[in-house]
Amino acid sequence: MTRARTAHGSVVLLSGGMDSATCLALAARRGRPVHALTVVYGQRHGREVDCARALARRFRVARHVVVRLPIGGFLASTLTRRNRPVPRRAAARNRIPSTYVPARNTILLALALGYAESHHLGAIYLGANAIDYSGYPDCRPEYLRAFERLTRLATRAGVERGETFRVRAPLLRMTKAEIVRTGERLHVPWALTWSCYLGGRRPCGWCASCRLRARGFRAAGVQDPLTSRG
Amino acid sequence: MTRARTAHGSVVLLSGGMDSATCLALAARRGRPVHALTVVYGQRHGREVDCARALARRFRVARHVVVRLPIGGFLASTLTRRNRPVPRRAAARNRIPSTYVPARNTILLALALGYAESHHLGAIYLGANAIDYSGYPDCRPEYLRAFERLTRLATRAGVERGETFRVRAPLLRMTKAEIVRTGERLHVPWALTWSCYLGGRRPCGWCASCRLRARGFRAAGVQDPLTSRG
Repeated sequence: MTRARTAHGSVVLLSGGMDSATCLALAARRGRPVHALTVVYGQRHGREVDCARALARRFRVARHVVVRLPIGGFLASTLTRRNRPVPRRAAARNRIPSTYVPARNTILLALALGYAESHHLGAIYLGANAIDYSGYPDCRPEYLRAFERLTRLATRAGVERGETFRVRAPLLRMTKAEIVRTGERLHVPWALTWSCYLGGRRPCGWCASCRLRARGFRAAGVQDPLTSRG
Repeated sequence: MTRARTAHGSVVLLSGGMDSATCLALAARRGRPVHALTVVYGQRHGREVDCARALARRFRVARHVVVRLPIGGFLASTLTRRNRPVPRRAAARNRIPSTYVPARNTILLALALGYAESHHLGAIYLGANAIDYSGYPDCRPEYLRAFERLTRLATRAGVERGETFRVRAPLLRMTKAEIVRTGERLHVPWALTWSCYLGGRRPCGWCASCRLRARGFRAAGVQDPLTSRG
């Protein structure tokens, strides 16, 4: 969709989870400037943010920005409200999970777009993947393509130079096991990633996100350093 | 563009300026619940926010939320950087002004979309107008329509019920004088609106925004209470 491209480099939306960490590793190996943007929007804990900072250092990003977005109070989701329980199981097939945060990816991509245009970066990396897009509307390929098209209308770069900001979601069609294998190949330090919905010293092991992670590592035949004992 | 619509009510992006105040007045007279969302993103002063609060009270909105978005440091614009002078004149024709904030309306609309879906509101009001869209890419009708289309792909309401969140920009084709006349008819309290790029006790009178406002009031034959002496 790109007609003219002058902007090199990319910004990676880095939550600190295993998906965004793998996404960062994929962006970093391209040898162009990589920036990381962590948006903290009322998650239950800051554990992921610590991981994001450590990952940004490990992959030597040009700049890492952490933005605290105080919108937890107005977005309806079990992930942004403190008094609702996090789900133990993944949602039933074809159902949108209760962890759905309204317009989450639109908000994240909009912030990343503003960052990218301000810093002359041509691409936005997002760790959305197939398992997500079975449930979340804003992880589906058609949504991501529509946002990408919007960037040409939304920006000075689009209007003046016909540029489209690329929305790259390289994990989109991967299973969790494939993400683990990809991350292994790129030396993602799994110990510096966090998936658990809770913020304990160790992952809880029973929330939907912990289970998904465990299944991915098991299927890939890789030991997860966060849960290995001893 | 709407196939099914169950959500009534709207959220108004309320900056505290004369355009968003008029927009709020237009939304309020429809007799459906109106919420107001004020996003403070590194403007130079809090004067507009005080106006937004006063306007929200005056128009008896169901809820007014003020979100402080600490992104001034990473968005390139004279409006978000403290050490750059604000422009005295409007930009030359067909040039994007230096007050352009990258992805500003995409960020605002994304937040409003998250808010609207969380509170079952079907429409987002934005005070964009013709004078803006001659300069800002994200005030143009084609951009606003594209964002509106995106909402169907981006949300649970879109996926599950085929809903599109309406993006209403009722001032889009109005001149400043028409906005003043519309606001007069709807009893917008101009004394509770703020346009000046600076945050003094009185408007500076020479910045691009003050001049535009003054021209609008003059052309409409209305006295601006903010600048009337005595």
